Order: sequence, then structure tokens, then C-alpha cells
Amino acid sequence: MSDANKVVLAYSGGLDTSVILKWLQDTYQSEIVTFTADIGQGEELEPARAKAIKLGIKPENIYIDDLREEFVRDFVFPMFRANTVYEGEYLLGTSIARPLIAKRQIEIANQTGADAVSHGATGKGNDQVRFELGYYALKPGVKVIAPWREWDLLSREKLLAYAEKAGIPIEMKHKAGGAPYSMDANLLHISFEGRHLEDPKAEAEESMWRWTVAPEAAPDAPEYLDMEFEQGDLVAINGLRQKPHELLAKLNELGGKHGIGRLDLVENRYVGMKSRGCYETPGGTILLKAHRGIESITLDREVAHLKDNLMPRYAELIYNGYWWSPERRALQALIDNTQQYVSGWVRVKLYKGGVSVVARDSKDTLFDQTIATFDDDGGAYNQKDAEGFIKLNALRMRIASRKRG
Amino acid sequence: MSDANKVVLAYSGGLDTSVILKWLQDTYQSEIVTFTADIGQGEELEPARAKAIKLGIKPENIYIDDLREEFVRDFVFPMFRANTVYEGEYLLGTSIARPLIAKRQIEIANQTGADAVSHGATGKGNDQVRFELGYYALKPGVKVIAPWREWDLLSREKLLAYAEKAGIPIEMKHKAGGAPYSMDANLLHISFEGRHLEDPKAEAEESMWRWTVAPEAAPDAPEYLDMEFEQGDLVAINGLRQKPHELLAKLNELGGKHGIGRLDLVENRYVGMKSRGCYETPGGTILLKAHRGIESITLDREVAHLKDNLMPRYAELIYNGYWWSPERRALQALIDNTQQYVSGWVRVKLYKGGVSVVARDSKDTLFDQTIATFDDDGGAYNQKDAEGFIKLNALRMRIASRKRG
Amino acid sequence: MSDANKVVLAYSGGLDTSVILKWLQDTYQSEIVTFTADIGQGEELEPARAKAIKLGIKPENIYIDDLREEFVRDFVFPMFRANTVYEGEYLLGTSIARPLIAKRQIEIANQTGADAVSHGATGKGNDQVRFELGYYALKPGVKVIAPWREWDLLSREKLLAYAEKAGIPIEMKHKAGGAPYSMDANLLHISFEGRHLEDPKAEAEESMWRWTVAPEAAPDAPEYLDMEFEQGDLVAINGLRQKPHELLAKLNELGGKHGIGRLDLVENRYVGMKSRGCYETPGGTILLKAHRGIESITLDREVAHLKDNLMPRYAELIYNGYWWSPERRALQALIDNTQQYVSGWVRVKLYKGGVSVVARDSKDTLFDQTIATFDDDGGAYNQKDAEGFIKLNALRMRIASRKRG
Amino acid sequence: MSDANKVVLAYSGGLDTSVILKWLQDTYQSEIVTFTADIGQGEELEPARAKAIKLGIKPENIYIDDLREEFVRDFVFPMFRANTVYEGEYLLGTSIARPLIAKRQIEIANQTGADAVSHGATGKGNDQVRFELGYYALKPGVKVIAPWREWDLLSREKLLAYAEKAGIPIEMKHKAGGAPYSMDANLLHISFEGRHLEDPKAEAEESMWRWTVAPEAAPDAPEYLDMEFEQGDLVAINGLRQKPHELLAKLNELGGKHGIGRLDLVENRYVGMKSRGCYETPGGTILLKAHRGIESITLDREVAHLKDNLMPRYAELIYNGYWWSPERRALQALIDNTQQYVSGWVRVKLYKGGVSVVARDSKDTLFDQTIATFDDDGGAYNQKDAEGFIKLNALRMRIASRKRG
Repeated sequence: MSDANKVVLAYSGGLDTSVILKWLQDTYQSEIVTFTADIGQGEELEPARAKAIKLGIKPENIYIDDLREEFVRDFVFPMFRANTVYEGEYLLGTSIARPLIAKRQIEIANQTGADAVSHGATGKGNDQVRFELGYYALKPGVKVIAPWREWDLLSREKLLAYAEKAGIPIEMKHKAGGAPYSMDANLLHISFEGRHLEDPKAEAEESMWRWTVAPEAAPDAPEYLDMEFEQGDLVAINGLRQKPHELLAKLNELGGKHGIGRLDLVENRYVGMKSRGCYETPGGTILLKAHRGIESITLDREVAHLKDNLMPRYAELIYNGYWWSPERRALQALIDNTQQYVSGWVRVKLYKGGVSVVARDSKDTLFDQTIATFDDDGGAYNQKDAEGFIKLNALRMRIASRKRG
Repeated sequence: MSDANKVVLAYSGGLDTSVILKWLQDTYQSEIVTFTADIGQGEELEPARAKAIKLGIKPENIYIDDLREEFVRDFVFPMFRANTVYEGEYLLGTSIARPLIAKRQIEIANQTGADAVSHGATGKGNDQVRFELGYYALKPGVKVIAPWREWDLLSREKLLAYAEKAGIPIEMKHKAGGAPYSMDANLLHISFEGRHLEDPKAEAEESMWRWTVAPEAAPDAPEYLDMEFEQGDLVAINGLRQKPHELLAKLNELGGKHGIGRLDLVENRYVGMKSRGCYETPGGTILLKAHRGIESITLDREVAHLKDNLMPRYAELIYNGYWWSPERRALQALIDNTQQYVSGWVRVKLYKGGVSVVARDSKDTLFDQTIATFDDDGGAYNQKDAEGFIKLNALRMRIASRKRG
Repeated sequence: MSDANKVVLAYSGGLDTSVILKWLQDTYQSEIVTFTADIGQGEELEPARAKAIKLGIKPENIYIDDLREEFVRDFVFPMFRANTVYEGEYLLGTSIARPLIAKRQIEIANQTGADAVSHGATGKGNDQVRFELGYYALKPGVKVIAPWREWDLLSREKLLAYAEKAGIPIEMKHKAGGAPYSMDANLLHISFEGRHLEDPKAEAEESMWRWTVAPEAAPDAPEYLDMEFEQGDLVAINGLRQKPHELLAKLNELGGKHGIGRLDLVENRYVGMKSRGCYETPGGTILLKAHRGIESITLDREVAHLKDNLMPRYAELIYNGYWWSPERRALQALIDNTQQYVSGWVRVKLYKGGVSVVARDSKDTLFDQTIATFDDDGGAYNQKDAEGFIKLNALRMRIASRKRG
Repeated sequence: MSDANKVVLAYSGGLDTSVILKWLQDTYQSEIVTFTADIGQGEELEPARAKAIKLGIKPENIYIDDLREEFVRDFVFPMFRANTVYEGEYLLGTSIARPLIAKRQIEIANQTGADAVSHGATGKGNDQVRFELGYYALKPGVKVIAPWREWDLLSREKLLAYAEKAGIPIEMKHKAGGAPYSMDANLLHISFEGRHLEDPKAEAEESMWRWTVAPEAAPDAPEYLDMEFEQGDLVAINGLRQKPHELLAKLNELGGKHGIGRLDLVENRYVGMKSRGCYETPGGTILLKAHRGIESITLDREVAHLKDNLMPRYAELIYNGYWWSPERRALQALIDNTQQYVSGWVRVKLYKGGVSVVARDSKDTLFDQTIATFDDDGGAYNQKDAEGFIKLNALRMRIASRKRG
């Protein structure tokens, strides 16, 4: 079975990927390279190093990278240029992080001469697809090891037993019984699946949510933010210019405080099943609203509609794991082309779970008060033009109606 | 100038359409038929009759119709089956009422032998287009008179002077000076344009809003609703079956109480300009969320995505006034075809301006817990299938990567 | 390995499916039901019965059906209503037959109490997908046996050896050495793959083509046909009303005689690879042109454009095997809705491989000579309307140009 | 009426634009600048200079430009990168020339300080829209004079009378009575409208066609061409590298000789009516086929399908005159992005009106014979992967079928 000499494992330091690490050593007798990334999940990474060493990984085979800036700048922000939403609701927080991890994992494989990569995603979910499509697109000959699809540790009990036998420390919470939520977090969001969420007719427990207070517990006074955009990307909040990931962290903090960005939905997975998930995307929820707000005054109508038409397809590509595909890149070329003038500021109001745009302005605005006014416009717009406009737009229907009654 | 013998005027009984009535008589020497509809705008209609009589309209030429049921059943609900939103935000409250008014106006023209129709929409807005495309589609030879495009009463002062001269009573509010908001209301929404809204960087005044309390003023406790759907349409709230327009009125009441459905945006008009509008759509905002909720468990993934792909186009058609076009009907055939199993109930939570889906169930659900579970599924889903799925989906990218590096 | 008690096999009577029949008996010890359909492939079916009996199939387990009428009426014609073409060229001749075979195979499985179905498509092609998506959609619990993905008879030599050992008669052509073209035929087309076609830079040999003469060998005089349509479907040729499959057979004969409908292309398979195929679709090529011809005068512009926009997606669904999916049905509802007035006649000219529309008329025509004329139209169209039409359509670009230079 | 001090007129030197020139002088008392472009219409341009001088135009106000290279390089070729076809048939020969003329006309207006532009297109056609949308997009404050919409010379007789009175020489053909075809020609095509073409059920007369021989009169032997592409554009024919316009001229010559590229159709104009037109596009017809041929081996499947999905919209934009719009530019960014590897050669066969691709190759080909082969592929492709691929693609349909029967 061992045709993997060296394996780069996406390693969180948690129980599951520690078991995988051990299982890879046992099963493939491969040298293991661990890769742990900070994409803003809010956990210390150094413990992962200690654990890896304890599990026998050579220090030079331990990679721990801070990818937060790259994540927001090259993945989250490009995606938000398209106002991307999957199935009308989901802001793709998990989906957008996977291509970056896959890319970095392949880079490490190339640097270390590894011939295989491995991840801890199950065989039922979307993440396996997102990881592996990335691997294959970037290194077509790579061997992919997906332990959850291969091993027989499919129940919680078996997994814990294997861990125990392998000397992997098991934290109290795992022993406490009952599967935990399946969670994923990064700078864009935290997600929850599993446990009693598997019953779509049961409301999520308040205790589950982590990043946001309940709207009921949010401040009783609204808070206003001024958000500044340049060419489609957020560049400053309340006048403070920061890097993309710093801005998103700030929005998360503010959104979390005001109970913004909770979502409870049943979504359609790429592998063919429906799944219930809960998400907290405080900063992203604010960003989406604000980006639409700045586009509303700076984007040409037909360009905006073209983007709206293509968005569901673009969202589907990202959800399904095709970030590194040529069709996603082609769409991105279109999207980026449209953002040239998407600059200016937007004022949003945050209050008890809600975010609303209340004002916006731009030196590149296409809003023309002299034309839009209800008052006398001094001839800027000739109302009589509308007659011909309507008549010719109606012509095909008039002909049809006359001929067919 | 008089080639209109008999004109059916969409008559609200307000100042503007009263001036139009008089102007039509003066200018075209036509017999006038007034048509006043109750589409849930929340105003008494009988005063319109009295005014019309006072302005010399024969009793048999006065039509006052309650169209509320037809409006919601045949226009609002079919539109909501598509989760229709224009430019990512606007629920098309004004747009969806126009085709019904146009249709009824043409019916009255046919009944009364009128050769012309007239409306009070200006030459800068979308409504003129929506009315007139409807007229032409349904009665291709009709003469359309759009006074705002013809006359010279383009300032508020001139209009008031004309009214005064014609003996049309002018209410205090009109005299008070300053143009009022341009408003439109029906069972789906109330809208505001004009005045200081013409400056997109100024926040709307709290005093402007009419149907909703400010979220800050809404109850401090959330309220839950159980909404029941059959084949895509709402049929009951909290177990009480009612007619479509009664249900929507109920949702408006509840949404208004909780500060739900306010929207402030800059939109792109069909006539080519950007315009700032504010909207209150309390019931519609709840309905949209709930409809997506019931679809999330009853709609096939690809059907849902197909609908999402077509929705912006469908919304654009309605916004632009093409309800009576053959392409809107063709899209409706597709949309209606998808709603066969969209039945079940959704629980929503209303709180301080926000509405969220917290639970949903259906006898026709496609959610399959035995497959979706994180626990052992007893073989309902074979995780190994995912490997082939991913490999073949990756194949084209692997080939490209191998050949092109 | 035997969890298939009774298997319905799509059986052509040829060498490959005879080997499969034997292999199924050997491997699964199942009872076999053979299903052989006439979909216009132009071969005698009774020899299949004799062969099946010789291979030990019980007479009551032999199904031989003439599906030609159903094939053209319920599959080919509905597809042509959409002017369906895959990747700009391919008329989907193979793709459209598979759903019918799958459906009938499942019907027979239900009638005979079979728990499994089997087919002779390889693991590299599209047909396995088309068959199996049909099976699963129509009978979700069915066991599918795809011998080419399971057995080790992957070379021609092994297959022949197995046949010899099993006493399956091998015709001369098979022994002659060299793999034959992989061919597929039905009333819509005949296809060729494999052999030297695997080199896309080599021209196909003239001797390969079967249904059409070379254009060079076609008659030196053109031939004209009058084709009559009702609601989108062909109903008569040169005044002779016939059933759908009879009409298509007639078109094949005429097209073949004039060298019409040859196609040589590299296409993208659903399983991820490119493949070179050659096709002869004489009747379909004529039908497509004629259907566009009748639509050109009877279809509203926006409906026609909507269809053109959706067609590639619809074609992809059929190519990929999703005929029985809910999204194909939803699209069909739209397509069928548009064909209400697609009635009238089209005159086409056939000559040396080419087909062109030269005339068309309909009682439902939307062509209006009084408006279209270059001569004085007596006011049917007011040229001045065009000014307003253009000015408002240009408005957004003028504003942008003025503001941004 | 005179608010046009200096007018740049698109001047062909023919009767109609000469009358316009005179009428502009008479009506507006404006200084006239004539602009005559060689875009490959195949007419001498110097006579236009002589005529202009004779009509009183100052020599420095006469612009005669050879735009053939720019036309093909910057307009025709970019459009062909998208395989652009309007309504399934029309190659947009007229549409694609208008934006160039508009652009150059505005450049001349800017150079000469002109405040107005004028053209000879009628108020019923598409060309007025294409010209004027270009004018307005590029110079938003320009005054546009469209004489056909303003004057009363709407019959042939009145026009000739005006010409006679103005001393404009009238050629024999105009006097001969009967309106001529309305024709338009450039390097991409020649078009015919009007006269007896106004009856869609009458076949076009053979004598009408100008650029192509009848297929019946074409050579009895086929001719093969090797066409070489780089990044989506044709760069050489039979090994001879030439400039874009030289290559297109060569294709026209070859296509014309073989009777290729005739088209007779009823199309939908943007102004709302159906219109019958005949077109000869010999070179473009060959180019389209060849471009699809080279894309078939070099383009990723999903990119190709994305392009096919967007093409009708892109074609509509060009047909309707929106070349200079931001949405066309955004789409172009996507299209151009896809052409990076569209390089290689295609062999086409020309014969009696037909053009077919018979071979193609590329150093960037994505066709992989080791995978595509019907022979043993040595493990390049694992047929067993198909099982999982199909099963997961079928999963949603299986679940639905199981739950809903």
C-alpha cells in the first residue's frame, strides 16, 4: 500500500489530524511533513508544533505559516468584489479558505520533495473536493490520501480508541461523550454542523454560537461605520487605513458585538446531499452590504446586472472547489475589470443583528442629481424622449398583439 | 390635438391626478373615465368618487375596484416563487402593481369603448414604462396620454396654480411648501423618493418612515411565526389559513411592529439614470426569507441553482415593466414548474428589524438525515464514491496542468 | 459477489453485449433478461432473439421493442424545439437515445421483478453516465452492473478469447484484426469513434461514412423541400403528413442523398477528457435549420434570445445524461411554452452537403411588411420614436462619459 | 434650428449621403466635414473627395481614411474570439463596423472642433442606434443629426427630386426606377435588404448575390486550407503570415470562389421589428468554423461552455450597438482571458458552399491520446473512478426518487 514516500499533511494539532498523522505513519510508513496555517481561526499554532514533535515529526518537517494577509487580500476580497453568495444566503466562509491551504500545501510538497498530500476532511463533505481539486490542478501527479475515505475509524469510539493506543493526548471535551459540532473557522467565519443541527426543524441552541452575541444581548444603541473602498476593496474603516486582514478582523469584532452575521440554513452539497449548517460571518455580512452600497453609485447598470447574472455561477464554482480552475479565473478577469471605479465611502448602521447602508458617496459616482431630481431639471433630461423609448420597446408586443389578438 | 374621444385615467383622487383629469378635459375635450383601485395602499377610496363627480365625471364613468386579492394572488405570490430581488436588494413593490393596474385599465377601456388611457407617472421614472408597456401589450392600438411628458406644469408652483384655477381643492400639506416625497403604496410596500433623498450621502429622516417602527423602537422580545407553504405559496400563518392578501396584510402588521423591511438604496432606472429610493416592505421581507427556507429542504439543488441563475433576469423584466411580455410568461412557466413540492412549514424569528429562519420541515423534504449524518450511516452513503467523483472532476485540470505546467 | 438475482441487460445481439451476457451469467449467476430496442439503428432485431436463446435466455425473458415512434416524438422533437447543439456543433444523436433506453430498461426491470440492470458502455465514455443517471433517477435502489468497469477483458484479444471459450459466434470482421470503429446509430444519427480518429490531425477516411454520400458524389442539382411545422414540431414534408419518426427517416434519406450532416469534431466528455468523434446527422441537420427558420418569423425577439441563452445549458444537460433530472424538466416547461405559435412552413434547399433556408411563411408570422418596408409606410412606424429610444438607451453611458471623461 | 456649427458627416460619396450633405447645409447652415472610410467595402474612395469638393466642402474638411487594418484587428478579430453569432445565424458583419466609424467620426469632431455628427442611417434600422450609441458614449455632449428621422424626403421620388434640384449627379441605376437593395459592405460581409426581400416567402434572386458564386457554379474539386492561430487570432493561411485584414481578404476571395457564406434570414431588429436580410460572409464563415476547431483542442471544457453561455449576450450587445459600453468591455476581458492557449492549426475543406474542419493540432492541445484511446491505456485513466462519479452525481436524484416515488 505504500506508494507515498513523503506526505504533506494539513495539520491542525487537534485530535482528528493527530490520529491521521499517526495512521499515515502506521499505514503508509511515510515520512510526514505537517503544515499548520493561521488563517485567522483564532487558535494558537505553537501547540501544534509541540504535538507534531511529540508524534515524531522532524523539526524541519514542521511548517507553521501565518497566511492571514494573503487569505483576505487574494481570496476573500476578490470574492467579495462579486457580491458572492451561495444559494441566496451563504457567504462561503469555508469554501474560500480551502484553495489557499491546498496551494500552500502543494508549495511545501514541492519544496520538500513530497509525493503525497493528505487532509482531514471526510468523504461526505465539500472540503475533500475543494482540497483535492486544488491539489490536482496545481500538481497533477500528486498522490492524495484522504484517510476518512480509507480507514475504518468511522465512529467516534474507534477514533478515540486509536488515539489512546497511539498515545495521542485526548482532551476532556472529547471524552465527555457525544460528538462535538463539526466546526471550521477562519478570518471570514466560523461554521457549525452535526449534532442536533442534523434535525432541520430544531432551532440551534444559543450556546452554540461563538463569535457573535445574540441580537438580544447586543448594545441598545446603534453604531455607525464609515467604510472606504478603492477599486472594489475595503481600504479603511472610520478613516483608519489598514491591511485587508486587519480590516476584516475589525469588522468581525464590530459585527460580533452587535450580533451581526448569524445564519442557519440547509444547503446543497456538491456531493449530492442536503446539509444543515450554521454560520457566523459578522465582518463579511457588513462587507457585503457595504460593497453593494458603493457599487450602487459607481457601477454602470448593465455591468451591475451582468455581475448579478454571473454571480450564482461564480459562487457555485467557489463552493464546489473550482477556485484554481480556468473558468473561475476567466470570470475573475471580468469581475476585476468592473471594479475600476468602485471607490468611495459607505456609511452603515449596525444594530441588534442588522446592518443597513444609510449613506454613500464617491468622486466617481454615476448618480446625477441634476437628472434624477423631481424638481425642474433645466433640460438636463428631455421627458419627451421617454415616449419613443417606450414605443419602440413596446413595438414587438404591439405587433404580436395585433396579429394574434 | 384631440384624437382621444374617451380616456380611462388611473385616478387616485389626489391632487396630481385631479389636475390631470382637468387638463385632459381642457386639452383633449375627451370624455373621462376614472379608475381607482384598492391594491392595499391603505387609503379610503370613496373620497375619490366624490372628487370625480365634483370634477364632472358621470357616475357610470367612475370605476372603483378592490383588487387586493387578485394583486397578491396573481402578481405578488407568483413573483415571490422566484425569490425575486432587483439589484440584490429591492423587492419590486411598485413594479409588481403596475401590470395589474394596466390590465384593469385596459379592461375598462374595452368595456366603455374608450380609445385612450392616461396615467400620472412622470417622464423620468419607471412607472410610465410599466404602465404603457402593459397598455400596448394588451391593446396595441390604444392611445396613451402621459400628461407629465406633454404639459408645461413641471414645477410645483405651476401645478398648484393650475389646480387653483380649476377649482381643485388643495390640502394644507401641499400648500405648506416644499415638494413632498414621491410616494407609492400597495399591499407589498410603500416607497419614498425625492426631497432630500436626492442626496445619496444624507441619511433618511426617521420621520419619513410610515409602515415600520424604527428597530430601536421595536419590542424587546423576539416573536416567532410558523409559516406554511403549499406549492410555493404561503397558505397559513401560525396555523391560520387565510387568503393571500390577508396573509400578506398580517405579515405587514407583524413586520411593521418589529421594524422589519426598511431599505435605503440607489437603484438603476430603466430610463437610464440612478435614483435614490427608500422602501418599507415588512411582509415581503419576511416572506422572501421564509420562501427560501422552505425551498432549502424541498428543492433539488440544480433546480434551485437554475432559479438563482434566472432570477436576476426575471427581476429585471418585472422592474422594467415587461410583466405582460412573452419572455416573462416563459420564465414563469419554468418557475411554476419548480414549485410542485415546495410545501411545508418554516419558523421565523422577528426581532428589532431582523428576520431569520430558525427551523423548517416538510413531508416532501429532500433532507436525508441518514445520509447527512456525521455518525455512522450504516452504508447509506459510500465515502469511497467520492474519490472517483473528485478524480473525474479534476481530470481536465490535471491534463491541462501536466501539458502546460 | 452475487447480489444481483435478475439482471435486465441492454442487449444489441452483437459480440460485445453477448460476451457481457455470458460474463454476467458466469460472474453473478444471475438470471438474465435481454432488452433489444429498435430506435432506428437500421439493423434486424430478430437475430438478437435467436442469439439470446442460444445463450440460454428464456423466451419470456427476451424483450424486443420498436421504440422508433416514441424516440422521435418524445425525445428528438422536444430537444429540437430548443435548437439544441452541444459545443456549437454536435446534434446530440447518441445522447438523446440513452434516456429512452434507460427508461424502458427500468420498466422491464419492474415488470420482471429484476433487481439489477446492465449495459455495454465503457468506463471512459459518456454513455455509462447517461444510462446510469437514468436508472438511478427512475429506480433509485437498482443495482447497476457495468462490466467494462469491472472485468479484465480490456483488450480486444482478451474479449475475443472469452467469446471463443463461451461459444459465442465471432463474425469475420471481428477476427480480421484491428479494432473497429466504435459506432452508435439511431434514427437521429450514426457516430464513429476510435481507430485512427484518435489522431485529431488526421482526416477521417471517406470509407468510414455510412449514411451520407460524399458531397462530391451528391446530385449536381439542388432539391427543394417544403417543411411544415405545428407548435414547434415538424408535421409534414412536401405536403405529406406523417408521424415524427417517419418524417425523420424521410429527412435522413434526403439528407444522405445530398451529402448533408457530416461532422468531424473534438468534443469534451463529461468524464473529463477530450475525444474525437465523427457524426452523420442528415435529417437532424435539415431539421435544425428549418426549425430556426420557422422560429425566425413566429417567435418574439426576447423569447428567441432567452432560448438562445438557455440552450447551451440545456444541451449540456442532455449531453451529460440529465434528461430525467428535474432541471431538464423545468427548462423543457419553458421551451415548450415558447412553441405555441411556432407553426408554418419553411422551404429549404439541399445541395452538395449544404442546407439553406430560402423562404418561410406562417399564419402566425410576426413579420410585418407594412412596418419593415423601406418604402413609405404610411405612418405605421414613427421614425422620430427612434430618437428618444436611442437617447434613453445612451443616457447611462453619457453620464459616465461626462463624469469620467 | 441651427445649433450645429460644424458637422462631421459619415459620407460615402453615394447619392443618399450627398443629399444629406446638401440638406445639412441648407437646413442647419453648418460647416460640413466629410468622413469617408475604407473598411473594405471594395469601392474607390477618391471619387468621394471629388464629389465633396464639388458640393462645396473645403479640402481641409475632407477626411478619407484607410481603416481596414484597424477594423479587422481591433473589431472583427476580437469578436470572432467569442464565436459570435446573432440569433444562431448572423455573423454581425454590419454591426461590427459601426463602432469603428463612430469612433473615428468623433475623433475627427474633436480634431476639427465640430459640435455635431451626422449619418445616413434610417429611423427604422439598427445602424442609427449603433452609430449614435457610439457617438454618445465617446462624446456625451455631441449633437446628433439623423436626417432620415427629420426630413420629409421619405420616398425615393422626393429624394431624387431634391438631388436634382441640388445639382447632385444621379447615376443611371438610380434613375432606372425601383428602389435598389439597401446594401452595406465591408471586409467582413456584404448585406442586402429591401425590394422583394421584403417578402420572406420569396426566395432571393440569384442575381442579387455579389461576393460569392452560387454553390452550383463553384469548382467541382474541393480546396483545403491550413489556418494557423495564435492566442485566438488567425495569423497565417497555408503558411503565409499576413496582417489580419489581408488574411480576411484572402479568406473572402477563397470563400467567394467556393460559394461559401450566403445567408438568408429574418432577424429581430433592436428597434422592435422583424426584418429580412441576405448576407454574404465568405471569409467570416470559414473563420468561425476554424476558430471553433482550434478551440476544440485547446480550450478547457468549462471555459468553452462558459463562453458558449455568454456568447448570445455578447452578440446581442454588438448587434444592438453597445460595443463602447462597459458591459461589452467586461465581457471582452473574460473572452480575451480565455484565448491564451488558443494557438495551433486547423485544416478546413471548402467545397460547393460548405466549409468543414477535417484536422487540427496544437502544441497546447488538451487532447490526450493516452487517455482517450479505446485501446488499453496502461492505467492512465482508472475506469473504476467513473462509478463514484456517477453515483454522487446521481445522489440527489436518487434521494428525490426514493422520497417522492
